[in-house]
Amino acid sequence: MENVGIAVIGAGYWGPNLVRNIAMSRTADLRWVCDLQLPLADRLASTFAGAAATDSVDRVLDDPEVQAVAIATPAWTHCDLAIRALRAGKHVLIEKPIAASVGDADKMLAVAAEEDRILMCDHTYCYTTAVQHIAAVIEQGDLGDILFVDSVRINLGLVQTDVNVLWDLAPHDLSILDYVLPEEHAVVGVAATGSDPIGAGQVCVGHMSLALGQSSSAHVHVNWLSPTKVRTMIIGGTKRTLVWDDLNPTQRISIFDRGVDLALGGDEELRHRSQVSYRIGDVVSPALRDTEALAGVIDELVAGVRGERRPRTDGAAGLRVLQILEASDQSLARGGVNIDVSLSYDAADKELVK
Amino acid sequence: MENVGIAVIGAGYWGPNLVRNIAMSRTADLRWVCDLQLPLADRLASTFAGAAATDSVDRVLDDPEVQAVAIATPAWTHCDLAIRALRAGKHVLIEKPIAASVGDADKMLAVAAEEDRILMCDHTYCYTTAVQHIAAVIEQGDLGDILFVDSVRINLGLVQTDVNVLWDLAPHDLSILDYVLPEEHAVVGVAATGSDPIGAGQVCVGHMSLALGQSSSAHVHVNWLSPTKVRTMIIGGTKRTLVWDDLNPTQRISIFDRGVDLALGGDEELRHRSQVSYRIGDVVSPALRDTEALAGVIDELVAGVRGERRPRTDGAAGLRVLQILEASDQSLARGGVNIDVSLSYDAADKELVK
Amino acid sequence: MENVGIAVIGAGYWGPNLVRNIAMSRTADLRWVCDLQLPLADRLASTFAGAAATDSVDRVLDDPEVQAVAIATPAWTHCDLAIRALRAGKHVLIEKPIAASVGDADKMLAVAAEEDRILMCDHTYCYTTAVQHIAAVIEQGDLGDILFVDSVRINLGLVQTDVNVLWDLAPHDLSILDYVLPEEHAVVGVAATGSDPIGAGQVCVGHMSLALGQSSSAHVHVNWLSPTKVRTMIIGGTKRTLVWDDLNPTQRISIFDRGVDLALGGDEELRHRSQVSYRIGDVVSPALRDTEALAGVIDELVAGVRGERRPRTDGAAGLRVLQILEASDQSLARGGVNIDVSLSYDAADKELVK
Amino acid sequence: MENVGIAVIGAGYWGPNLVRNIAMSRTADLRWVCDLQLPLADRLASTFAGAAATDSVDRVLDDPEVQAVAIATPAWTHCDLAIRALRAGKHVLIEKPIAASVGDADKMLAVAAEEDRILMCDHTYCYTTAVQHIAAVIEQGDLGDILFVDSVRINLGLVQTDVNVLWDLAPHDLSILDYVLPEEHAVVGVAATGSDPIGAGQVCVGHMSLALGQSSSAHVHVNWLSPTKVRTMIIGGTKRTLVWDDLNPTQRISIFDRGVDLALGGDEELRHRSQVSYRIGDVVSPALRDTEALAGVIDELVAGVRGERRPRTDGAAGLRVLQILEASDQSLARGGVNIDVSLSYDAADKELVK
Repeated sequence: MENVGIAVIGAGYWGPNLVRNIAMSRTADLRWVCDLQLPLADRLASTFAGAAATDSVDRVLDDPEVQAVAIATPAWTHCDLAIRALRAGKHVLIEKPIAASVGDADKMLAVAAEEDRILMCDHTYCYTTAVQHIAAVIEQGDLGDILFVDSVRINLGLVQTDVNVLWDLAPHDLSILDYVLPEEHAVVGVAATGSDPIGAGQVCVGHMSLALGQSSSAHVHVNWLSPTKVRTMIIGGTKRTLVWDDLNPTQRISIFDRGVDLALGGDEELRHRSQVSYRIGDVVSPALRDTEALAGVIDELVAGVRGERRPRTDGAAGLRVLQILEASDQSLARGGVNIDVSLSYDAADKELVK
Repeated sequence: MENVGIAVIGAGYWGPNLVRNIAMSRTADLRWVCDLQLPLADRLASTFAGAAATDSVDRVLDDPEVQAVAIATPAWTHCDLAIRALRAGKHVLIEKPIAASVGDADKMLAVAAEEDRILMCDHTYCYTTAVQHIAAVIEQGDLGDILFVDSVRINLGLVQTDVNVLWDLAPHDLSILDYVLPEEHAVVGVAATGSDPIGAGQVCVGHMSLALGQSSSAHVHVNWLSPTKVRTMIIGGTKRTLVWDDLNPTQRISIFDRGVDLALGGDEELRHRSQVSYRIGDVVSPALRDTEALAGVIDELVAGVRGERRPRTDGAAGLRVLQILEASDQSLARGGVNIDVSLSYDAADKELVK
Repeated sequence: MENVGIAVIGAGYWGPNLVRNIAMSRTADLRWVCDLQLPLADRLASTFAGAAATDSVDRVLDDPEVQAVAIATPAWTHCDLAIRALRAGKHVLIEKPIAASVGDADKMLAVAAEEDRILMCDHTYCYTTAVQHIAAVIEQGDLGDILFVDSVRINLGLVQTDVNVLWDLAPHDLSILDYVLPEEHAVVGVAATGSDPIGAGQVCVGHMSLALGQSSSAHVHVNWLSPTKVRTMIIGGTKRTLVWDDLNPTQRISIFDRGVDLALGGDEELRHRSQVSYRIGDVVSPALRDTEALAGVIDELVAGVRGERRPRTDGAAGLRVLQILEASDQSLARGGVNIDVSLSYDAADKELVK
Repeated sequence: MENVGIAVIGAGYWGPNLVRNIAMSRTADLRWVCDLQLPLADRLASTFAGAAATDSVDRVLDDPEVQAVAIATPAWTHCDLAIRALRAGKHVLIEKPIAASVGDADKMLAVAAEEDRILMCDHTYCYTTAVQHIAAVIEQGDLGDILFVDSVRINLGLVQTDVNVLWDLAPHDLSILDYVLPEEHAVVGVAATGSDPIGAGQVCVGHMSLALGQSSSAHVHVNWLSPTKVRTMIIGGTKRTLVWDDLNPTQRISIFDRGVDLALGGDEELRHRSQVSYRIGDVVSPALRDTEALAGVIDELVAGVRGERRPRTDGAAGLRVLQILEASDQSLARGGVNIDVSLSYDAADKELVK
């Protein structure tokens, strides 16, 4: 089968990673690197065979050898660029967040459907071996029913002037939850709190308490003000508890074979009596290969372009992340009170995915 | 100086630890172990020279050699027992939480003042070398201004029928914050969320977002449903960030010599520009002795009884913890909205402490 | 059944731990604490009910209520004290190393046999839940055939003037190996190297390469000059590899489900071809209770005194440790060359143990 | 300045890493990928602009645009290939070990000197930020006098038929020691032990005890039979102890501010008295950038070709590693006895380096 021709738009922070992974893929060909700052594009393109640099999006979209475009520009440019590319008949891979607003994302999804093109979100973490493993573990029922999720992402990222920390970092956590949790545990409510202790004009420390389906809950802590890096997610189930520590390469995932059971009956006369019994068992750390997640993203894009399967992180996934972020804005504005959310699931789409 | 005679009331979960530490102290003498279940008391007392067992609180309070009473019974009995002991002229050390309600705690503080006796809370964690070190580091200004605190306490503790997880576990975190943070960062608001995914009839997974003075914030995550144990506290400051991992005995405290500075000025034309600069430096882990915190509690009680100093975890500290817990109940009942709090600080008391 | 009366001789570094564990045991009674420095003995004895202090060994040995004596004095005094106690009809628990020489240990074993008394070595580590688990794992064949052992013990211990670091620290490692390895992997040769870079007059950094039965090997690294503490043992087998990190309380033991197989046949023409295939599987960390090992030592002594079973760390185990240490002295004196060793296993004894 | 044209010979295990780092370097141009298996070479070359594939070494050496050749072929081919390249006027970067024997290495160094070309060893680890930091720490005297080194390298590498584990893995440790230790602590003796418990026909578990100058010592443990990966080096000094754990990316290096001092004088009458005093201080973990070491190797090669400086891991460094390996063979053959070593230091060379 022929390789898929891909152009990268945006040679800034994330673009070079896309460029390298496309160039080194065995199923994709890097055709263009496009950036308004031509020297940036040039420097990236010149290393790889068959790639050219340009500062013109039109030139990229006019090239019939370009089947897909990977967009790594600021969020506020996503809607316009993606729609142009889709209208030009190109498939689109887009950085998170998919757009600056739910309204924009809706438009993008509509155009993609109209043009029958792939609109895929680069939810990179979903393609790590860790998240792939977590998804499999949950789908197989190894954790039992999901009780709670706790995610901490204290990043080295920079304070932004145009978005708060929830918009900047929580898309990672929200896209992972979207990917690994079954639909019955979808987010149904958001309560968000935040603080700006340095007077940056944006919430810099943020907390989201997410009500999930079936009385379970998730919590996301994101934080710009701690150069100390923490990347952990704990997923508690009735059968087992999973701990993912992304900064521990020798043991990223630990599955505690320990369960919690609600004891039935019980002696009403005694106070302070436990209603719950615990089972204390071993801890298992699966062997995970150490691969670059972005290579998996490119493989998924190629598979989508070739019609082999719908991308697992599609436009609808990107839209749901935005719906939660917009609800968090409302909660922040109203003192942290819970805001009900009803996410967009498209039954037909989900079916296609599986 | 003569040793201080102490009786322990309550031989259940925590009592044996008090008994052992008092018996092995060089400045205290264990006189009585008192429990309604006499065999429990007897077994504890029989190991140590000079200690007797009883099931009668009156007998303990009648003994003139008993100068102080350590109470380790359920919270709802604290108010009555403490007031009886104080009225009998005994000093009192009491388990957390100090009482079942702010009203009860107020009464206990009033009686202690009236009788001029010590009312000390056994906020054990405050006497660990880790918390002592954290308090010193903050007082010396090593962290700079406090920006945020994040505390996670996922405990092996049991689901209770009469209190939720916030009342059960968060007193530890709240008492530590009370101990280490300067008064200008006192709690001024509480927003709490919680879930009960197993139908236990109580919130089993709880989150508290605490607004602190000077726009800083703290967050406390407590959880009964994860047999996986996590005990970490991150304290971020303008100069340095401190991470306390209580389950890592070889490196409990790490101080990241990394700061965050808000850049002044800045180019208005550019979007996505960072306003903040980071300084990336080394990590320092202080050498901490490994001592038993409860021995420090007993030393503090003895020092109080001897009039050397007011206990650093006094009744007022216990009261403030209760004030926050009651506010969390209100927030939970109102969908997680922030509840303003005004803690009881007694200027005169604070002065005495220092 | 009546409690076993025990006296402790030696109130220095280790004595207080013995005293506390005996006093708090439910099956033993602490009768005496004996030390030439009477105030030391007195301070220890005075805390516990029923215990007296003395500086006279005779007084201890004359007491008919003393059934067993725990000796925690310097190694060079062990032989004389143990033989006196055995001759007085007492059972003996003795600190490591069992004696200052193989000759002394032989005498002690002979007297114990003559008097039909228990002579037990306080190889404390063997009674930790970690070592108990390791022994069980190996006995069940979970590791397959043992291929190699690597033990590192970098201790906070002090430089001694009368013994080198191998004599001071390696007894821990050697007693553990003696406990967990099957007899077919017994030590058959010792090559030792050491250095004294600070001019202390003793080897301060020591390495022992132990040839074991069936072509397997063990290596022990002990070191006085590193205040950095490391306590790890790796045991590699054909089926699995076990890693014991004693300073990681949340995951002391990890069992890597990874095997090594020698491929049969193979293509002779190709150089650089692997003969071995690996199987990469998960890591399992067993749930271990956190108990005090010395309590298990006292239980074992009591069980021995009551005739329930022969102590698992008997005098013969202590003797074998000494035989290896004496061989290490010879190797050190001869430039590190391997010295053949033939350990004393007493078939009858072994039978009694099981 | 013009970029340096480089060809890579050998497209097997390590070659692709060289190819990628040369292609992405801003100062080097990848000209050729050469391998007897042309498709391997072709696949590597086709990704990058300006690179061609060939199976002819002559073609590479005839190309005047090739200034340097990077050789990543089996060790037994190094001597011949390197000498051909040097005679053709090319600079040479060569994989470890530099050659199959000290005799071969001597020849290579002689030809390089004759032709006045760079002969550089790809001792990759020396260009990690960790080893660079260790070298700086030691040179600044932060550790005080070096007392001991302990290095453990348990690798996922494969059992080889033509070399034992010491030849396969220990070159990493030996090249690091050569790089970071001052010349007064150079290796002066080698005692090696090894075992082959799986009957592979080669030593699979190896230990080297290295006597260093000034009574210090180093120990290297290498092991093919443990799929469990360990990569630690402990360097103890009189002032501080450094621990390098290469598998802990968040804290690769920890420097324990703890010292050991030999106490002068002392009371002769007392046995068991410590001669040494310890100072227990904090632990510092330096902030290290996370860069790819091989990029540093290519930079060093380019700097050498341009005449800016002599490569810090030159042919003489590679020769010294071989001298130690050959001594280890002799020690293994003679039961582990220490073999004296006198390493080749070339004063003139050293001067040039600094």
